Amino acid sequence: MSTEASRSRLQRDTKSVKISVIGAGSAEFSLGLVKDLCLTPNLSGSHVSFMDIDPQRLDMIHTFAIRYADEIGADMTFDQTTDRQASLQNADFCVNTAYVQGHYHARAARAVTAGHGYYYGGAHLGAWYQLRLMLDVARDMERICPDAWLIQSGNPVFAGCTLMTRETAIQVCGLCHGHYGYREIAGTIGIDPDRVTWQAPGLNHNIWLTHFIYEGQDAYPLIDEWIETQGEAYWRTHIARGTHDIQMSRSAVHQYKMYGLFPVGDTPRRGGWWYHTDIETKKTWYGEPWGGPDTELARPLFVERLEKRLADMKRLVNDPQASVVAFFGAQRTREQQVPIIDGLVNNNEGQFQVNIRNNGALPGLPDDIVVEVPAIVNQKGIQPLRVDPLPPKIMLECIWPEVLEMERDLLAFKTGDKSILLYNVLDSHQTRSYDQAVAVLEDVLGMEGNEEMNASFKFPGNG
Amino acid sequence: MSTEASRSRLQRDTKSVKISVIGAGSAEFSLGLVKDLCLTPNLSGSHVSFMDIDPQRLDMIHTFAIRYADEIGADMTFDQTTDRQASLQNADFCVNTAYVQGHYHARAARAVTAGHGYYYGGAHLGAWYQLRLMLDVARDMERICPDAWLIQSGNPVFAGCTLMTRETAIQVCGLCHGHYGYREIAGTIGIDPDRVTWQAPGLNHNIWLTHFIYEGQDAYPLIDEWIETQGEAYWRTHIARGTHDIQMSRSAVHQYKMYGLFPVGDTPRRGGWWYHTDIETKKTWYGEPWGGPDTELARPLFVERLEKRLADMKRLVNDPQASVVAFFGAQRTREQQVPIIDGLVNNNEGQFQVNIRNNGALPGLPDDIVVEVPAIVNQKGIQPLRVDPLPPKIMLECIWPEVLEMERDLLAFKTGDKSILLYNVLDSHQTRSYDQAVAVLEDVLGMEGNEEMNASFKFPGNG
Repeated sequence: MSTEASRSRLQRDTKSVKISVIGAGSAEFSLGLVKDLCLTPNLSGSHVSFMDIDPQRLDMIHTFAIRYADEIGADMTFDQTTDRQASLQNADFCVNTAYVQGHYHARAARAVTAGHGYYYGGAHLGAWYQLRLMLDVARDMERICPDAWLIQSGNPVFAGCTLMTRETAIQVCGLCHGHYGYREIAGTIGIDPDRVTWQAPGLNHNIWLTHFIYEGQDAYPLIDEWIETQGEAYWRTHIARGTHDIQMSRSAVHQYKMYGLFPVGDTPRRGGWWYHTDIETKKTWYGEPWGGPDTELARPLFVERLEKRLADMKRLVNDPQASVVAFFGAQRTREQQVPIIDGLVNNNEGQFQVNIRNNGALPGLPDDIVVEVPAIVNQKGIQPLRVDPLPPKIMLECIWPEVLEMERDLLAFKTGDKSILLYNVLDSHQTRSYDQAVAVLEDVLGMEGNEEMNASFKFPGNG
Repeated sequence: MSTEASRSRLQRDTKSVKISVIGAGSAEFSLGLVKDLCLTPNLSGSHVSFMDIDPQRLDMIHTFAIRYADEIGADMTFDQTTDRQASLQNADFCVNTAYVQGHYHARAARAVTAGHGYYYGGAHLGAWYQLRLMLDVARDMERICPDAWLIQSGNPVFAGCTLMTRETAIQVCGLCHGHYGYREIAGTIGIDPDRVTWQAPGLNHNIWLTHFIYEGQDAYPLIDEWIETQGEAYWRTHIARGTHDIQMSRSAVHQYKMYGLFPVGDTPRRGGWWYHTDIETKKTWYGEPWGGPDTELARPLFVERLEKRLADMKRLVNDPQASVVAFFGAQRTREQQVPIIDGLVNNNEGQFQVNIRNNGALPGLPDDIVVEVPAIVNQKGIQPLRVDPLPPKIMLECIWPEVLEMERDLLAFKTGDKSILLYNVLDSHQTRSYDQAVAVLEDVLGMEGNEEMNASFKFPGNG
């Protein structure tokens, strides 16, 4: 319990907390968190410390948060800082949402790989800057707030949470919202998502709908019926409402047919290389007009919308008469961060979809990797349900290959062995020759913004 | 102990055995076994039952064996049969060397895949006929000679032995001679192979030189010196003495540099897809004149030489005056089958390189897969040494991917799920599109000779 948050404790049974938000410049995320906190009376009196390296963005978020709480009449306090260690002082929770290199660096990297013949990224180099930041945060927490929970909300959740749980003693829980894809499945086939009982374990961005129950009955036959009677018409006529509207795409249904379980959320977005060779292929599998979120058509639009939203917020913050509640709404988001915090500190028990150290929760995988499973959260902690094993085919073709990729990323990160990066590029199905892999690797490492990563890698031997 | 072999037991301390050789038409192999038996006095009085589906080949082998034993004065008896169950009656050992579909079917399959744009095979469909035969043999043994050892000497050793150890209670040991590659390394760098102490554990065809000791010193620096001072000249000027002469190729040394351990035997022959894209690339990595054993230049030559050898044997058998010993020699081969049999039955202890159920021998891998490790063989059995773990990079880039591939092959074999075959074709780095994979799969399954395999596979659902 932080000192800032303790003053309201005397008047009520529930507890307030101090939450440090790392990478608070992620405006939509931070303000969603503020909104959820303001709308959770159990956490009244809590304090949020916004930390980011961008002071201007930070100032906007801070002003916005104060005005939102004030307007809605919530008892919340806020501070802002560019000093991570300061932000973590007395924290009960650290929510890390930082994205180190940003969308423009990713775009520049795609331009470099395109110059070597790769379609939309293509060559996988891991997420070295993200992993380093995550580990730095967890290590800071070990010194500054060792009993705090780390709620990892930025990617890569799977590799990053596995790394942090292995390398530090911090309690780590990774969160994502991809599992809400079950609602899109329900909505599309015409049943009420609120009345569906579901389960979708796996790895983050690699989860599979093992249970889909509606009114006490297995609802998979309703999916099959939809595919049979409406699938083709849907795929021919459906225009995506957003870049990520792919839950019922041809690709998702194809994966379901192959594996026997529906892939949920960001899962169909991945799948085998064959869905991703070029824009026409992408449109075939993921639909019009963008071919899913990971194309040269979709991504700029996605980033543009984020920026437009940010520009709108800036205008609002500069207008002292405007209502931030009118702009941002007074309904809780579907994000799980605040309900989980409430569950942990106020015993307001609930079931959530979390990424947490396996320890047998998902059978057939090592104990020391982080899996995505349902969990009961209350003041005893985050207690994952031990789910049934996934089918062997999903394990062999979807889960294990990603475990190996994650382990290679962590091994490369820990050892600085450049040959592992090279292997990852060679492992890309788009790579056509050894020389091409070497060339694209050197060019990406040589990019502006990749200097530290580049300096940390050497080939074995003379290098 | 078989009845045929028991008569000579009274006169001596050592024991004779009955050995059933399945696929005995593999002439070179079968006659090597006969030679080793004839040159192993401990096994005097033993009986070999040659079994094959080709009666003519069988007759030649049988005649050859009788003449060899007779000429060299060995107390050995032989029979021939096309009835597998008959051959296994009272067997103490079954040596399975059968290759069901043969070199010409493999060539025809390569022609089919080439028609779909694949270079030299390219699309991997598993080894369904081999796996079925292996399992049939092991199941026959469970009924007919449940205490006999099965010495698996035909490929795929890794998948086949894993399958048999999981599905039957038969004692299985897979053998290969690839590990003798350590001798080529020693010979090439100029040290006496007989004075080298070595170790190279892993999976069959995927073994790594963890120990290489000469005169009490780590001899890896001698390899490094050879690479430094003589490597380039060797690669520029060396002309392979045989299609499999690749132990010191650029590819092998490149793999060594990447992984820190030298790949041995058939290991460098595999390696990443990038060594195998076309004949020029193959020649660069595996040398002149054939680019290694797996090219359109090398394979016909290899098969031609096998056939020439067979023709020579036929001529010899038809000439009652000729000396079979002069033709075949009176030196033991380096094959391990007979010394292992002698070790098991006569306690003539030795250390061998075996493929056997893991049970912790190679740490970091499941217990229930078959690994290639050194083992002490004596009358207590085949006792693998628990070796040190292989380096993480080798595990993640070489061992685990092959474990997953093997598991997919076994899952496809057990379930008849055609989508797993399709995944394997898609997983080939040479595959360029989903439609190409579907087309080549259907065409290979539709080949003459693949009827039973084709009939046993269906896609999930309506398929």
